Amino acid sequence: EEPKAPFIQTEIPGPKSRTLFNELSTVQNSLAVQFFVDYDKSYGNYLVDVDGNVMLDMFTQIASIPIGYNHPSLVETIKKEENLSTFINRPALAVFPPGDWLKRLQSSLLAVAPPGLNEIQTMACGACSIEHGMKAMFIAYQRKKRGGQPPSKEELQTCITGVAPGCPDLCILSFKNAFHGRTMGALAITHSKPVHKLDFPVPYWPMASFPILKYPLEENVRENQAEERRCLEEVEDLIVSWNKSGRPVVGCVIEPMQAEGGDNFASAEFFQGLQEICSKHDVSLAIDEVQTGCGSTGKFWAHEHFNLKESPDIVAFSKKMLTGGFYYKEHYRPHEAQRIFNTWVGDPSKVILLEAVVKVIKEQNLLARVNDTGKCLFGGLQGFQTQYPNLLSRLRGLGCYGSIDLPSMEIRDKVISKLRAKGVNTGGCGEKSIRFRPTLTLEKHHVDIFLDKFNSVLHEV
Amino acid sequence: EEPKAPFIQTEIPGPKSRTLFNELSTVQNSLAVQFFVDYDKSYGNYLVDVDGNVMLDMFTQIASIPIGYNHPSLVETIKKEENLSTFINRPALAVFPPGDWLKRLQSSLLAVAPPGLNEIQTMACGACSIEHGMKAMFIAYQRKKRGGQPPSKEELQTCITGVAPGCPDLCILSFKNAFHGRTMGALAITHSKPVHKLDFPVPYWPMASFPILKYPLEENVRENQAEERRCLEEVEDLIVSWNKSGRPVVGCVIEPMQAEGGDNFASAEFFQGLQEICSKHDVSLAIDEVQTGCGSTGKFWAHEHFNLKESPDIVAFSKKMLTGGFYYKEHYRPHEAQRIFNTWVGDPSKVILLEAVVKVIKEQNLLARVNDTGKCLFGGLQGFQTQYPNLLSRLRGLGCYGSIDLPSMEIRDKVISKLRAKGVNTGGCGEKSIRFRPTLTLEKHHVDIFLDKFNSVLHEV
Ligand code: FES
Repeated sequence: EEPKAPFIQTEIPGPKSRTLFNELSTVQNSLAVQFFVDYDKSYGNYLVDVDGNVMLDMFTQIASIPIGYNHPSLVETIKKEENLSTFINRPALAVFPPGDWLKRLQSSLLAVAPPGLNEIQTMACGACSIEHGMKAMFIAYQRKKRGGQPPSKEELQTCITGVAPGCPDLCILSFKNAFHGRTMGALAITHSKPVHKLDFPVPYWPMASFPILKYPLEENVRENQAEERRCLEEVEDLIVSWNKSGRPVVGCVIEPMQAEGGDNFASAEFFQGLQEICSKHDVSLAIDEVQTGCGSTGKFWAHEHFNLKESPDIVAFSKKMLTGGFYYKEHYRPHEAQRIFNTWVGDPSKVILLEAVVKVIKEQNLLARVNDTGKCLFGGLQGFQTQYPNLLSRLRGLGCYGSIDLPSMEIRDKVISKLRAKGVNTGGCGEKSIRFRPTLTLEKHHVDIFLDKFNSVLHEV
Repeated sequence: EEPKAPFIQTEIPGPKSRTLFNELSTVQNSLAVQFFVDYDKSYGNYLVDVDGNVMLDMFTQIASIPIGYNHPSLVETIKKEENLSTFINRPALAVFPPGDWLKRLQSSLLAVAPPGLNEIQTMACGACSIEHGMKAMFIAYQRKKRGGQPPSKEELQTCITGVAPGCPDLCILSFKNAFHGRTMGALAITHSKPVHKLDFPVPYWPMASFPILKYPLEENVRENQAEERRCLEEVEDLIVSWNKSGRPVVGCVIEPMQAEGGDNFASAEFFQGLQEICSKHDVSLAIDEVQTGCGSTGKFWAHEHFNLKESPDIVAFSKKMLTGGFYYKEHYRPHEAQRIFNTWVGDPSKVILLEAVVKVIKEQNLLARVNDTGKCLFGGLQGFQTQYPNLLSRLRGLGCYGSIDLPSMEIRDKVISKLRAKGVNTGGCGEKSIRFRPTLTLEKHHVDIFLDKFNSVLHEV
């Protein structure tokens, strides 16, 4: 059922997409729309637009489609009579959970829990996963500070208005170019592009540099080590100085690879050093795996590449995981009811879809496939980079997750648009990178098609 | 298929619920769980727990079930072959929308848009609906302030770190006892209970009093008018003083009836006065209809009871609407792409369920039924309040949405638990209220059952 190759019959967006765009624009701002999709016809790694254009999808709904469009096992999941009521009756999950809830968690989220993390809080999207992960860190910090005492009357009163001591002046450390979400807490630790933050009164919290490595890595070992050392020193300096200033750093949130901010990779040693600094200063460490989780780097969780001494304190996820949420160490479990809570706290209908996805990943050994396919993808791109040194640079990737840079934003955008005209859908990130975010079911023959189209675009540019 | 009456065979939580509770507690904090539910067996207005207890549900998943459990029209929606791909392929909706997206919006969200509001932004839950509604107000405010000029270089640079002028010192005014959500921006305007805010470094923004009316209303006309006047004066004073202090008030967010904070009702005149003050001071007015929207007050939107001179600027929703989002006036449409944005911006699979719900509401004229049934419900409660003046007070309600007070939290909790033991599920709110949040399909015979059980509980207490 998967198309054999891309097939393009109109420009993109085509006439139907353009008409729909004009109509949709009467009821909302639609300026982010690239084209309208026929999701009935899309299949596997191919996206079909409303004008009948068939594109190989290397962007996959901003990295959120795990095993391709209309995967048969997901069709089956929805058609199963026994699953029907889960799709209809969304519960207030933390108050009236379904009887099979733990079983469902065990065959989905808990079956792929990062090593060392045994507890799970479901949420609904990346932003609330990060927001509530930060709250878990604040709660644990204040509980420890109280040394077993209950909150004071003054704390209970002042928190209602939102002032200290009930709402204490605490902060979370994050990184330049980071993206963690668009609600206010997630936005406070986001530092990638003005479009996210401009005009919004977000809390001002410490921001350290994230390493910007020079490529190829083999030729820049010493500079890159120095760069990472510089960033780690900045982290430690910021923790010390903010602690001194009376606004203690409770936690540190970081992406294993910065995605939105330009696909910035750092070494395992950098993350090991970061964990060391955090534990030295009693700062909780949360890894935001919203874009990197669920296998695309060749390990289920990207931070598994880092050989950390112990697991991170919190690991947040969403996108390909279909549900949001975070794993946490026992220390981060609130002791009271309804501290990490909302009406829905997630959605069991997404969890049973994830159950099917996890089954497919395991049965078909998709992580091995991601590593194989990734070798072709990045091997091929490596060849192009050698061939076109003035056009391509900074190739970086793990598994099938990675990026390559063009000389400028203008050229990058042109390449993306020409690729699309030839039937390959990709996305940009950072200032001038193209990011590759295929599904876990991408195969070598897809990569061949992509490399062929990419090559001909590079010829033209 | 709907049970004829409650049927109780164990205590609640029963043995199966208690076992499941202990098991679930090994992987997460489960202290908010009341009992485990069999969602396959639940039907209409009846919730069935895993121990086989059948309860009339007057709480409905914290007011989030619109037309009852396993409604046939929702079953049909999910089984329709043409809807299948919507449940499987969740799109990055703002970038790659499905071809039928506008049509779907027209037969769901736009078909029930509040009078005067023609634009719609979808979101995924109450919290992000409020967060992004506030962002729309900040964007419109800053755009107006810039008078058509683009943001300055300094603004673009400073917003990345999160300081002024890029992230200006602006605020939103809200009310004592308000609840708007648990992400940090929504939390800044939430002021109901310590459990929501304690330990979290939320922004400190102005909080005005919300009227606490005396009941019965007929006997307290003058005091209540004075109380509402006092609150409105506070609103205006806060706007003036915060504006002067260099932290201008951009918007005001308010629930039409405060739910979580104790089902506090204010008069239409109060809301008219609030709108007047807001427009006098150029403050945007957003109504949070997350809990009140979708018909439970007898009008589709609760603020329609207020006869406002013009529509509010923003109306946010979630819960019974199944999808989150907000309606807004054209002035609040961002002029640039991706300002109000995230990966999913909602979920078309929830919107096609809402489509079916809206169809049922219209075809079966459920708003009229809500008003009829509500008259029985609150009429009956009125009788009890007269009969038990030492137990019951402050009866208040509109449609089927409302509350009654018990003398203390302890007695309130006892009444809720005794009601449950007799097969009626209700929820508390505020300090000592019981709130009634049935579906729109509740009928008089359900009310008779409820009143009968309630009467016998009152006898016992
Ligand atoms: S904030 Fe995550 S779904 Fe609303």
